Amino acid sequence: MRTYEIIQKKKLGLELSVQEIEYIVEGYTAGQIPDAQISALLMAVYFKGMTPAETTALTMAMVHSGDQMDLSSLPGIKVDKHSTGGVGDKTTLAVGPIVAALGVPVAKMSGRGLGHTGGTVDKLEAIPGLRIEIPTGEFLEIVKHHGICVTGQSGNFAPADKKIYALRDVTATVDSIPLIAASIMSKKIAAGADRILLDVKTGNGAFMKTLADSQALANAMVEIGEGCGRKTVALITDMSVPLGNAVGNYLEILEVIDVLKSRGPEDLTHLCIELSAQMLYLADKGSQEACRDMAKEAIANHSALAKFTEMIQAQGGDISYLLEEEEQGGQFPLAKFLVPIPSPVNGYIASMDTEGIGLCAMTLGAGREKVDDILDFTAGIMIKRKTGDAVEIGKPLAVLHADDYGKAKAVMEKYLDCLTFSDVPVPKPTLIYG
Amino acid sequence: MRTYEIIQKKKLGLELSVQEIEYIVEGYTAGQIPDAQISALLMAVYFKGMTPAETTALTMAMVHSGDQMDLSSLPGIKVDKHSTGGVGDKTTLAVGPIVAALGVPVAKMSGRGLGHTGGTVDKLEAIPGLRIEIPTGEFLEIVKHHGICVTGQSGNFAPADKKIYALRDVTATVDSIPLIAASIMSKKIAAGADRILLDVKTGNGAFMKTLADSQALANAMVEIGEGCGRKTVALITDMSVPLGNAVGNYLEILEVIDVLKSRGPEDLTHLCIELSAQMLYLADKGSQEACRDMAKEAIANHSALAKFTEMIQAQGGDISYLLEEEEQGGQFPLAKFLVPIPSPVNGYIASMDTEGIGLCAMTLGAGREKVDDILDFTAGIMIKRKTGDAVEIGKPLAVLHADDYGKAKAVMEKYLDCLTFSDVPVPKPTLIYG
Repeated sequence: MRTYEIIQKKKLGLELSVQEIEYIVEGYTAGQIPDAQISALLMAVYFKGMTPAETTALTMAMVHSGDQMDLSSLPGIKVDKHSTGGVGDKTTLAVGPIVAALGVPVAKMSGRGLGHTGGTVDKLEAIPGLRIEIPTGEFLEIVKHHGICVTGQSGNFAPADKKIYALRDVTATVDSIPLIAASIMSKKIAAGADRILLDVKTGNGAFMKTLADSQALANAMVEIGEGCGRKTVALITDMSVPLGNAVGNYLEILEVIDVLKSRGPEDLTHLCIELSAQMLYLADKGSQEACRDMAKEAIANHSALAKFTEMIQAQGGDISYLLEEEEQGGQFPLAKFLVPIPSPVNGYIASMDTEGIGLCAMTLGAGREKVDDILDFTAGIMIKRKTGDAVEIGKPLAVLHADDYGKAKAVMEKYLDCLTFSDVPVPKPTLIYG
Repeated sequence: MRTYEIIQKKKLGLELSVQEIEYIVEGYTAGQIPDAQISALLMAVYFKGMTPAETTALTMAMVHSGDQMDLSSLPGIKVDKHSTGGVGDKTTLAVGPIVAALGVPVAKMSGRGLGHTGGTVDKLEAIPGLRIEIPTGEFLEIVKHHGICVTGQSGNFAPADKKIYALRDVTATVDSIPLIAASIMSKKIAAGADRILLDVKTGNGAFMKTLADSQALANAMVEIGEGCGRKTVALITDMSVPLGNAVGNYLEILEVIDVLKSRGPEDLTHLCIELSAQMLYLADKGSQEACRDMAKEAIANHSALAKFTEMIQAQGGDISYLLEEEEQGGQFPLAKFLVPIPSPVNGYIASMDTEGIGLCAMTLGAGREKVDDILDFTAGIMIKRKTGDAVEIGKPLAVLHADDYGKAKAVMEKYLDCLTFSDVPVPKPTLIYG
């Protein structure tokens, strides 16, 4: 009856001890505690919350349920970056090469996308030949020689989190800030970095729709990081519009290259520089201001682009596309149909349903509705006008990239449903909240 | 994902529709919805409650999950009585014969005891030869010919409630008033009575420890009864002391006979008359005052005692004990050891831990710790002094009845721990709150 008493305790809003949390996580992972008791406990946590001591204990118990990456063979301070996910967020693929070019080792494991959000691993897989399943030994070797490697999750990290998350997913207990924070942090801590930079997205395209929730999540994760002895910094950044203009795996790789060639969209470039600066700062590379300048310089002098190319080559990816694109202009394979969406009005875009736009991209084939869906790497959306931009009847708001014209036509209407318009000018959203 | 959405809806405190509740109950009973989702939903109900419309829908869905007793072949208005359970509550066995003697058919199915509470069926089984497993047809025949029959639960009543209760029991979701109310009422409504009298116990020996909770439970059950088209009345009665003086199956049968012979303890007799009056009133037998007088008269003229004897005989029970006891005085088999507990002080009993006293009786063999424990029918406690009574050093507070002297000695100390004493007089507890 120990599990029963732990549920009862949490139900009454009392703090669970480290031992009680370990008992739950170990017992559940070992299959000794049934789903039914854990889901009742999770729902009680949803209503009663967890203290920083509890979330830290939960995180560490989940870390200890599986493997932990040992990055100690790599030189210097290892800094990991994690985004809570959104639409068009390809920052990892620009930030990684920027900081790697400046001597910060990037040994990064990324995830796949689901629903309206994309995943870094999916974007990388769009590059022909590039391997994302790399054994740990080789992964560390690549980082040692090239300063950067971005792979899918190998190893058995935080299996308890995986099992608990699967249960939360069917019991409506996903949206609990302490549970989200512990889930993210368990994987980050198992991944072995010394310091952690968190990019907590906020807005209608983010998991956290309100600034207050995003701040609470950021605080919870920073508290866990500190509780687990890993210096942790969180930025809260906007996801009330897609980040950059490209949504879709191939299209986003192109946009990353644009950023590294100093011709990327302003919002994306600005955020990549800020995230890079914070990572450099966490790696003790200098003051925030100095780090910001270093990041800008790595883009300007093309050392970050060179590092990006080196990374792709090291992971077996075909870089001829990059070179061709550079030399011949636009040789990347594109989708069969490029369907512009003309504006129905004159005026300004007042708001974008960013999650809805992510789902439009998913419907076109750029994302997964179910985990085993097959992606169409060339599918996606190139956005031409975002919140605050002026629009004109007939001029394109976005261009849909699809292999099926009927699908594109169907998405066109959905995309328009994601926008609201205004007759008067609308301010652009704030990109970085803090 | 429909179940998911229903959990989510309840989590947000919204009212579930009749269709949603039916979907959940039917799906869970059929094994199509996993325990984990239901336990999360139950925990959300614990925190967010249910409206009367929801509890009524839940009750009816559980009723429809199994058989329903058809009492239409019996003449007149069928009234059922239900007690939420306590220590020494043997009222059914006196009230049933009283109202049956006055022409109200009593077709009653009762339960067994668990933990500190006793069950009517266990008490009946203490009578040698008496059958409590009676097929429905015979059950109805006995009621038709004798006006009364009290059996264990036969038939498959509210199997959904059984399954949900088992899940609540391990997920700390038992103590939710709407769930308790729906659970009780589903069994009462399936049992087929036209009108229902509820005896909601309150105090430290009851399931509901506070008057506020007891009132909330009573209200919830009356609302369900009315919502299901069954006229329902609830009394809230005291369980801060054991009811009557006898706790233990055989001892309680003797005390019932005492009540029917006008020599029972005052509190028990008073409550039996009040409950009988309410049942008669529900059966349209006259005004509350007239019904009260009729109940008193049925005891005074021994017609209730005759009905009790008739019932036992009709169910195959040996009535020679009753006759012998009448003629020879005290021929009932008693336990091997009768161990008095002397008072350690002069003064008054200030309070009794009634649940603790129930557990003492259980330890002696009168109750079950687990559902498959075997009872010792002669075991129990005869209480000599209750809250408000004066006590004197060395004079017995109670007499333990046990087949094992060591067991009785061990319980003696526990029993004393259940009492607090006062130097100054203490008022007797109120018996009926409303």
